[in-house]
Amino acid sequence: MGYTISTTLDKPYDAAVAATREALSAQGFGILTEIDLKATLKAKLDVDVAPQVILGACRPALAHEAITREPSVATVLPCNVVVRALDDDRTVVEAFDPDAMTQLAGEAVAEVAADARTRLGAALDALAEED
Amino acid sequence: MGYTISTTLDKPYDAAVAATREALSAQGFGILTEIDLKATLKAKLDVDVAPQVILGACRPALAHEAITREPSVATVLPCNVVVRALDDDRTVVEAFDPDAMTQLAGEAVAEVAADARTRLGAALDALAEED
Repeated sequence: MGYTISTTLDKPYDAAVAATREALSAQGFGILTEIDLKATLKAKLDVDVAPQVILGACRPALAHEAITREPSVATVLPCNVVVRALDDDRTVVEAFDPDAMTQLAGEAVAEVAADARTRLGAALDALAEED
Repeated sequence: MGYTISTTLDKPYDAAVAATREALSAQGFGILTEIDLKATLKAKLDVDVAPQVILGACRPALAHEAITREPSVATVLPCNVVVRALDDDRTVVEAFDPDAMTQLAGEAVAEVAADARTRLGAALDALAEED
């Protein structure tokens, strides 16, 4: 079983990042954290990787429900959405699949995770449709 | 199988957060992200949860190795370490278990995840010993 859901866009990286932010916002996800992985690894190790950012997406009501049911699930929050350049014109948007959260944390979080998956899936579908 | 490793400290929350930062740093983990979950949920939903912070711990060399072997694993980076107050005097430090990363992402990341687990485990052991 996979642990991510993703879509590939015919967009350059910067446009894909902007579109991803909008699509997540439209589904009620705020961005709580942001890691520019390319810049971080360049600064720390002087290595070059593809442009990519890890966006920590959180829908507060879902996060609250999840940690109320199972406090340990905070270790897999927020839900990461990675935007990664494949080349100059194509970018992949890949989210941690909330179903994997259920796989790890069990049935207590299944309902909340299913809700999160529906919304993240809708965000990816919207990105693919407008592409 | 569990998906976290944890230790419970006889320390108030603030002292436990400070000790956790030091223990992670001693094992080469920088903190790339930080979410004050209590403050966030209070601000967004006006609900009260236990004091808790999600620290996004990253050892850059391991992160680089992991995404080189399996780009999708960026969706479970950085490795979250949650510090959560149990009461006024006791605090739990709970990390996402890198073994669960292997469980999700497969053997390609097993070696890197094992290294991360050894280091995170050492950080938790150090916290428990000095407690």
